[in-house]
Amino acid sequence: MIKTDILIIGAGPTGLFTVFEAGLLKLRCHLIDALPQPGGQCSEIYPKKPIYDIPAYPEILAGDLTDKLMEQIKQFEPGFTLGERADTIEKQEDGTFIVTTNKGTKHQAPVVAIAGGLGSFEPRKPLIPNIADFEDRGVEYMIKEPEMYRDKDVVIAGGGDSALDWSIFLADVANSVTLIHRRNEFRGHLDSVDQVQELKNEGKINLITPAEVKAIIGSDKVEGVEVHKKDEEPFVIKTDHFIPLFGLSPKLGPIANWGLEIEKNAIKVNNALDYQTNIPGIYAIGDVNTYPGKLKLILCGFHEATLMCQSAFQRIYPDKKYVMKYTTVGGVQGFDGTKKEAPKAVVKKIE
Amino acid sequence: MIKTDILIIGAGPTGLFTVFEAGLLKLRCHLIDALPQPGGQCSEIYPKKPIYDIPAYPEILAGDLTDKLMEQIKQFEPGFTLGERADTIEKQEDGTFIVTTNKGTKHQAPVVAIAGGLGSFEPRKPLIPNIADFEDRGVEYMIKEPEMYRDKDVVIAGGGDSALDWSIFLADVANSVTLIHRRNEFRGHLDSVDQVQELKNEGKINLITPAEVKAIIGSDKVEGVEVHKKDEEPFVIKTDHFIPLFGLSPKLGPIANWGLEIEKNAIKVNNALDYQTNIPGIYAIGDVNTYPGKLKLILCGFHEATLMCQSAFQRIYPDKKYVMKYTTVGGVQGFDGTKKEAPKAVVKKIE
Ligand SMILES: Cc1cc2nc3c(=O)[nH]c(=O)nc-3n(C[C@H](O)[C@H](O)[C@H](O)COP(=O)(O)OP(=O)(O)OC[C@H]3O[C@@H](n4cnc5c(N)ncnc54)[C@H](O)[C@@H]3O)c2cc1C
Ligand SMILES: Cc1cc2nc3c(=O)[nH]c(=O)nc-3n(C[C@H](O)[C@H](O)[C@H](O)COP(=O)(O)OP(=O)(O)OC[C@H]3O[C@@H](n4cnc5c(N)ncnc54)[C@H](O)[C@@H]3O)c2cc1C
Repeated sequence: MIKTDILIIGAGPTGLFTVFEAGLLKLRCHLIDALPQPGGQCSEIYPKKPIYDIPAYPEILAGDLTDKLMEQIKQFEPGFTLGERADTIEKQEDGTFIVTTNKGTKHQAPVVAIAGGLGSFEPRKPLIPNIADFEDRGVEYMIKEPEMYRDKDVVIAGGGDSALDWSIFLADVANSVTLIHRRNEFRGHLDSVDQVQELKNEGKINLITPAEVKAIIGSDKVEGVEVHKKDEEPFVIKTDHFIPLFGLSPKLGPIANWGLEIEKNAIKVNNALDYQTNIPGIYAIGDVNTYPGKLKLILCGFHEATLMCQSAFQRIYPDKKYVMKYTTVGGVQGFDGTKKEAPKAVVKKIE
Repeated sequence: MIKTDILIIGAGPTGLFTVFEAGLLKLRCHLIDALPQPGGQCSEIYPKKPIYDIPAYPEILAGDLTDKLMEQIKQFEPGFTLGERADTIEKQEDGTFIVTTNKGTKHQAPVVAIAGGLGSFEPRKPLIPNIADFEDRGVEYMIKEPEMYRDKDVVIAGGGDSALDWSIFLADVANSVTLIHRRNEFRGHLDSVDQVQELKNEGKINLITPAEVKAIIGSDKVEGVEVHKKDEEPFVIKTDHFIPLFGLSPKLGPIANWGLEIEKNAIKVNNALDYQTNIPGIYAIGDVNTYPGKLKLILCGFHEATLMCQSAFQRIYPDKKYVMKYTTVGGVQGFDGTKKEAPKAVVKKIE
């Protein structure tokens, strides 16, 4: 059982910044995300695109925003359960909640902050009859541990940035990389498309287009895939892994059944106070919540997370009075023993 | 008469970011501030100190935060009335407001956003009987135009960062700089104290401590000041300017008499919707407002400004429906003709 003060569901920008604001209040956080990496939409959908409306950043790449947030919260040593979806929640007699993931990992906390964005990112799967039998036995819909492909034969399917970028990355790691796409044209950053062209020319990526994988071959695990190429007989490629990268799409999913008030596919909260839901102790912040005038913007999630943490503090320590101190004045004391602090003014004689 | 869409009172971080959010909605802004420079508390009280809780900035100096915000809003060409205090507001028959400053400058807009922080920054004045007679005739409590001191004789009084930093700066501009402080010890950044010591050693700053200016001499304008130094007879120094830098302190001031609901020296707003005050068309955002759970933090002002702009848009264009577009997707179209835009994905054949 993983125990923490605030259990955060969703490691997008809102969930990440919650760790910082909680940390200022000396509350510890643990985050669950279905994605294998933090950053939510920013890291999954548009990591290389610029955002222009983060306050005081005239321009920042969504991936860099995630990195900056990770750096900012490092001091507060957040825990992560990545690549797992929060499926069920149970209220305990002592008022705490237990949240269990689809892989059975259990987490317990007195406060749950749902920062689930548009929902849990779930892969779009190709229509291959027996594919479910091979999941985690050679079929992966997202790449969690690039090292597991070292010296392996890998087939990637897809025509977007993920397929391009992972083909490029694994070309250096795997024994062989075959990229299969149902069109000749790829859609992505110019850089990525050109790099794949180059690696193909150098023989480092084996390209098959226009083509589709229509069957998986293997007994216990993936041994090969059957490729259908236009105007050719189907043929089999020997491979250890088949990685269809057709994009991930967010689904509110199991959270919709937690007894929370749902409106327009989002969770209703009390925006006049603390972004709490209809279940005391469960808050919803960022894109996942709704209230009159709600805007699904990153900067709004930051504010909501901040106010929410104050309320969570009162809930966890009903008898403590919290006196806010500016970070500039009080510094930031990490759980890892480090302290950030403004240089003090000196009082010094000039003579 | 200066006319604009949103008249912003206060050019602190909240007021500045309002320009950006308004600009995305194609609304123009004009800002009034009692200070000679934008940035509010950040630029007046602690420009060289680090802030740690600006989202995605693990650390940023308050002065740099101001610079970044100014850079971010540049595209939207905000107007500024600086060094003047907004004193009166009058509602017109057509529903617009006219705001007049203490110097008589008039501004007209359909929406007023009060982003006045802890109030208008007003100088602490030394107790010198006839000092009021010399204001703007050689006595200045803040420095608006450093160039006006070129080749002049200047006496600065004070023992903090402002007095130190302006003495350093003007040592290169003025004909002579005399720094007078009632103690031997100065309180400020180590760097600044050391630099003044050096300039004093080089004879570029004339230091008189512990001492006080007790009278101003001159007929039409400042001609000299009378200095009282411990254990010495009072003496007169010839000077063109006397600049007492004893700090500025914020006062809600005239805004308190605008008919707005005031609570704990702040303006009550509807935080459940759009941060509007009890007077329709007048909003209050940032440190100046209050509501249940309010936190006087910079990041909260950013969120409040954003929601407020949406409401202002509806007020100004009741018949237009605004469809929000992410900046990443729609880009940012400045009023100055520039456009920021994410590079588009390409669709390209690999062969
Ligand atoms: C193309 C594009 C451009 C954009 N441009 C801008 C812009 O310019 N400015 C701006 O402010 N915003 C922009 N946005 C929106 C912005 O990305 C979102 O507002 C932001 O990501 C919301 O952050 P969040 O942390 O609330 O949620 P998300 O980023 O959506 O993160 C939520 C996370 O929760 C996880 N999750 C959900 N449910 C579960 C569960 N049950 N178990 C485990 N994990 C779960 C998801 O997998 C996801 O990783 C853009 C979005 C897109 C798609
Ligand atoms: C030492 C110190 C450290 C701080 N550290 C932090 C921190 O670490 N994190 C954080 O989030 N916040 C911090 N703060 C608070 C932060 O500076 C404020 O929250 C922020 O400045 C508020 O921004 P604002 O734009 O709402 O108001 P302000 O910055 O106060 O700006 C308001 C402006 O309005 C002007 N004004 C008011 N009335 C009038 C009028 N009638 N006419 C003309 N002009 C007017 C004032 O002159 C002022 O310039 C700190 C504050 C101080 C003093």
